[in-house]
Amino acid sequence: MVPCPQPLGFCTVLLVVRIIKLVLAYDGTDYVGWQRQSNGVSIQALVEDAIAPIEGRPVSVVGAGRTDAGVHAIAQVASVSLESPIDPAALMRALNTTLPADVRVRAASEAPPDFHARFSARSKKYRYDIRNASWVSPFERRYVWHVPQPLDDGAMAAAGECLTGLHDFAAFRAAGSEVATSERTIHELDVTRVEDEDGALVTIAVEADGFLRHMVRAIAGTLVEVGLGRRDPDDVARVLASRDRGHAGATAPACGLFLVRVRY
Amino acid sequence: MVPCPQPLGFCTVLLVVRIIKLVLAYDGTDYVGWQRQSNGVSIQALVEDAIAPIEGRPVSVVGAGRTDAGVHAIAQVASVSLESPIDPAALMRALNTTLPADVRVRAASEAPPDFHARFSARSKKYRYDIRNASWVSPFERRYVWHVPQPLDDGAMAAAGECLTGLHDFAAFRAAGSEVATSERTIHELDVTRVEDEDGALVTIAVEADGFLRHMVRAIAGTLVEVGLGRRDPDDVARVLASRDRGHAGATAPACGLFLVRVRY
Repeated sequence: MVPCPQPLGFCTVLLVVRIIKLVLAYDGTDYVGWQRQSNGVSIQALVEDAIAPIEGRPVSVVGAGRTDAGVHAIAQVASVSLESPIDPAALMRALNTTLPADVRVRAASEAPPDFHARFSARSKKYRYDIRNASWVSPFERRYVWHVPQPLDDGAMAAAGECLTGLHDFAAFRAAGSEVATSERTIHELDVTRVEDEDGALVTIAVEADGFLRHMVRAIAGTLVEVGLGRRDPDDVARVLASRDRGHAGATAPACGLFLVRVRY
Repeated sequence: MVPCPQPLGFCTVLLVVRIIKLVLAYDGTDYVGWQRQSNGVSIQALVEDAIAPIEGRPVSVVGAGRTDAGVHAIAQVASVSLESPIDPAALMRALNTTLPADVRVRAASEAPPDFHARFSARSKKYRYDIRNASWVSPFERRYVWHVPQPLDDGAMAAAGECLTGLHDFAAFRAAGSEVATSERTIHELDVTRVEDEDGALVTIAVEADGFLRHMVRAIAGTLVEVGLGRRDPDDVARVLASRDRGHAGATAPACGLFLVRVRY
């Protein structure tokens, strides 16, 4: 709050509201997801509750992506409107002192007044990691889906090609989802395989203008069926065209999924 | 058990005892350490209890290194004497089904009859990881020591040089340790700094013919004091010569320490 200049002859205050943009990383293992819910601890609730004492009132923090229970973020973006004059760097330090170690603020900055973490986002990128080896290292057990049978990543990449572009992704959304439209544009879908000391890591990276609930996990589950030879690569185009969730593969586990980038 | 050949005229059995060598990886966060203890769950107890039903009797599993509470292993080596004729690969699969996901068997093989994971070891290598950045990623929070102030890794490397070779490391062992001798030979001590997307990772890698209790963590704590400029690099030689634990730095936290290799 800034006192008004004296010449006005009476005293008032100007409420200076700033939009602060936060970049967050979190291990989603122990949380019900980004969004505040009654059935457990959410990342949103943690961040809101950590900011409230600084702001002196309850705040509402908006996230770019509503990551589900168990889903991780390398760079989730959130926005919050603050009256407190706190410096963004000081806010970041304060939050990293208060928040549990599995939720970290990577960056904090003042954003333009019309910035909204969700509605201003032009695209989001998710990554799905699959450990394709006989065993999973204890150090990544929370961060990969373990598929021990050999995966044909070439077939997965070929199958994924038909998904890029503007499509109705109704076949790849959670049953019972209610959103106005299930049309989304996938800008990029890459399947890569990297051999490291723990075996092969197969990664499905998807960048899109938006995602339906469970969309990346349904795509990952379907592409893994292709990689295992249980489904023909050409079948994925038929699944997409069907707009029927029952035709796609199983939803891959949450633990392999990361929100990696939001573009504005 | 192999039935004896018929010509002997009576029936007996030959107990065929094999020594099985196991290579284990574990996240030590939730354990009291390698060694079986009354105050909590140890890795040794988990592995022994997982093998016992296969062997049909209690077994004793020997570990190459007695990692402390919270210390991790990328490749701990253990040996166990088995009468069961189980194939090592089948044993590995069975154990990885029974053991919790934070303890994994990486390899299992039959070893020579005189193999003993601890006494046959020629050298062991530990690695101590320090995240030298303003924040620690949620994904490595269990696996690094967070030191936010800038570390001079060159000074740390210079300070560490005097520790290589045969020395009495009494100044770098846990208070109250009772071992016959505190002389050990450090074959190699390397301090490296790698910049990655999360900032700088400073690693102290130490290979020696043996280690005293808390030795690597006392060395890491002392070298970090050098890296922070709180201690002169030359001071470390004086600490070593003093043989007095009170002269070395604080014991670094367990979470940054990994047993990475055992040579035979």
